[in-house]
Amino acid sequence: MSARAGIVVTGTEVLTGRVTDRNGPWLAERLLEIGVELAGTVIVADRPDDVLASLRHLAAQGCDLLITTGGLGPTEDDLTADVVGRYQRREMVLDEALESRIAEILRPLLRRWPDLDPDGVRAANRKQAVIPAGSTVLDPVGTAPGLVVPPPEGEDGPGVLVLPGPPRELQPMWEAAKATPAFRSAVARAVSYRQGMLRLFGIPESEIAETLRVARRRDVALERLEITTCLRRGEVEVVTRYEPADADAYEAWASVVRERHADTLFSEDGRLIDEQVADLLAEAEETIAVAESCTAGLLSARLTERPGSSGAVLGGFVVYSDEAKIKLVGVDPSLIETHGAVSGEVAAALADGARERVGADVGVGITGIAGPDGGTEAKPVGLVWFAVSHRDGRRLVRSVHLPGGRADIRDRSTTVAMHLVRRLLITDVAEGAHEGGVGLPAGEATRRA
Amino acid sequence: MSARAGIVVTGTEVLTGRVTDRNGPWLAERLLEIGVELAGTVIVADRPDDVLASLRHLAAQGCDLLITTGGLGPTEDDLTADVVGRYQRREMVLDEALESRIAEILRPLLRRWPDLDPDGVRAANRKQAVIPAGSTVLDPVGTAPGLVVPPPEGEDGPGVLVLPGPPRELQPMWEAAKATPAFRSAVARAVSYRQGMLRLFGIPESEIAETLRVARRRDVALERLEITTCLRRGEVEVVTRYEPADADAYEAWASVVRERHADTLFSEDGRLIDEQVADLLAEAEETIAVAESCTAGLLSARLTERPGSSGAVLGGFVVYSDEAKIKLVGVDPSLIETHGAVSGEVAAALADGARERVGADVGVGITGIAGPDGGTEAKPVGLVWFAVSHRDGRRLVRSVHLPGGRADIRDRSTTVAMHLVRRLLITDVAEGAHEGGVGLPAGEATRRA
Repeated sequence: MSARAGIVVTGTEVLTGRVTDRNGPWLAERLLEIGVELAGTVIVADRPDDVLASLRHLAAQGCDLLITTGGLGPTEDDLTADVVGRYQRREMVLDEALESRIAEILRPLLRRWPDLDPDGVRAANRKQAVIPAGSTVLDPVGTAPGLVVPPPEGEDGPGVLVLPGPPRELQPMWEAAKATPAFRSAVARAVSYRQGMLRLFGIPESEIAETLRVARRRDVALERLEITTCLRRGEVEVVTRYEPADADAYEAWASVVRERHADTLFSEDGRLIDEQVADLLAEAEETIAVAESCTAGLLSARLTERPGSSGAVLGGFVVYSDEAKIKLVGVDPSLIETHGAVSGEVAAALADGARERVGADVGVGITGIAGPDGGTEAKPVGLVWFAVSHRDGRRLVRSVHLPGGRADIRDRSTTVAMHLVRRLLITDVAEGAHEGGVGLPAGEATRRA
Repeated sequence: MSARAGIVVTGTEVLTGRVTDRNGPWLAERLLEIGVELAGTVIVADRPDDVLASLRHLAAQGCDLLITTGGLGPTEDDLTADVVGRYQRREMVLDEALESRIAEILRPLLRRWPDLDPDGVRAANRKQAVIPAGSTVLDPVGTAPGLVVPPPEGEDGPGVLVLPGPPRELQPMWEAAKATPAFRSAVARAVSYRQGMLRLFGIPESEIAETLRVARRRDVALERLEITTCLRRGEVEVVTRYEPADADAYEAWASVVRERHADTLFSEDGRLIDEQVADLLAEAEETIAVAESCTAGLLSARLTERPGSSGAVLGGFVVYSDEAKIKLVGVDPSLIETHGAVSGEVAAALADGARERVGADVGVGITGIAGPDGGTEAKPVGLVWFAVSHRDGRRLVRSVHLPGGRADIRDRSTTVAMHLVRRLLITDVAEGAHEGGVGLPAGEATRRA
């Protein structure tokens, strides 16, 4: 049995959905890395009773470590340190060394915002130096310190790791927290799990259910594996956790997936399509340029998410209007007249035009109907045409009919485009030429791409 | 006292952070709209015991309604209906009408993926028609039905609303769920709160703590208001909830904020900067074009998030390399040589070039160092230059030094740019000309923009 942890995310702004919680997921991944099982994440408002009840609930689930995020700020609705003190039955005391440390941190801030009232700022932040007695202080990254608060004097029970809400303050504190004795003793029982990650593109999730049945018929020891599947940005992700001794069972399971899904399994090593495309471009020393209509910059932004992407991405175009397609990328107006702006022909012209005008090796064109308006029977909302073309003449053109709302369609389109780029980069010239025709019927393409 | 609800989000993929939960926040907003207070959101893995414990915990917090999301899919790790049946002590029964309904939904899917084994698909989905006896079925949007499961026969207790995980299946079900008797009786006690939203740009969050102290000194009845502040994409959001009878207290509090933060308060009516910029452009019947270096498409994508944005956004440029800045937008190479690519001069040339080449009324240029590499002492990671220029000669040029990692810097840059566009659009010619100089020292600009 492994060590268990529970996370309490505090903040009315997170609970009410105004702010997306990034800390729970981030901490979940860190816990997994060190072999600590996560029992659950509870999100509550900045109400002392709710925070306290959440700590108690998670402790009752057998947690050895509780982690709180948020509620350490300077305003009066930030109450976490106080509540954790109550939970561990420890008095609140002013830590004077910490108070000076925070004052030091604030000095440059006061210079930057010269109109602020210095006394007000100091009062607001003195509050942040009042902590439960016996806590270990984790040095502030912003102005809020982290804390490790041990169980009540002389009692057993989970330690509580108290972290600030802003991810850029929380994340650097994690390493410091891991080094504290309270944290180490809590996670002493951790088992190191392995995790296998298989990613597929172009099949529905229900196909994996059938693959599980096939594996069971072939006596793969599925009961030794914890298998979960999910859809993520249009891809199916199959994650398998297992203890190191069960590696053979995992290998047998992975073989069944490989055999049944040879043409759609694109990643077995945890690498995302984004990394694969970046690596393929880097290996070939090739550059890429995009002309985007409905995605309007999202693919360029996605291609440059990783540091160092300037080696492959030179530039690109957002061509929202027909005029921009013609003027910026050189699409022949007669193509738009004849086939419409959302067509394979225009997608191909966008790919070629982007490539040529930027001087890149690979060009990508995207044109579609993201909705909610603008759809017709022949070209419904969700129809998106893609083209990827190479300087050497290879070209792939596809259409898909994507489900969901405007944001889904735009996001999903970037995933389809990434897979089409990968396909072009791993396909030799002959196959590329064979597949290069325009006019594949809509709805067929997700499978082939 | 208002009705309370609790949300249980199930899914190992959500708990472990591989997938971002969009349902909890979405449901939180819907509950707020109908005056139901959210006690908490619990995220757990697809483990029956954990789901059950979460339902019990939330019921113990006085919830009148429990909502589950996820775990209704065709694979064997999808167990929610079963667990809710156990929680409400109701037998699981096959609903034959529902089974036929699902079979009907699957027919086109089977045509689209002709290689699937039809028996396998049907078996996987028959599971989705086995539901707790006495449940109200909510018609499937995908293949998974929603359920409203009443408390055990003859007992009081919260009803459970069971919804599927994919947001595009869950969201359309909400209206149907609200119409069910079980749901209506659970939320009968709902009080309709009002909510006031004040958004500020260009001050640190701690300033609001001081404003709260000022309001208290002036005897504003803060105890009748529930005020929370948070940072969101670089803006400070102050949300105040209150009962309709306390509108005067809210008005007194809002007056203090208005007075102390006149120059940074940009929204009092809930409108985001995105809506303000879209509306300002639409009112002036003006168009906009962007040339982006470090943000590489994110601002164009943000400007086109809203339906109908094609009225204002014609096109734009991603100019990641120096060559692209010169070739695509016509930046004078000597400007890059003299001032560097990250400079006010180049930002201004990008704004002008984008505007002229696209034929737009407003141009935006962004060039900065998103990191993690590429920073120097003079131009550190996080330094970003912005320019906004108008066809009539007005121009604003600013630099900021943004905190955080690569993704933060890129995202935050789009917020700064949006505010600079707003500033240009609400400023008259004289003021614009006055503010138009290049060379404002880095670090000063967030306040002034």
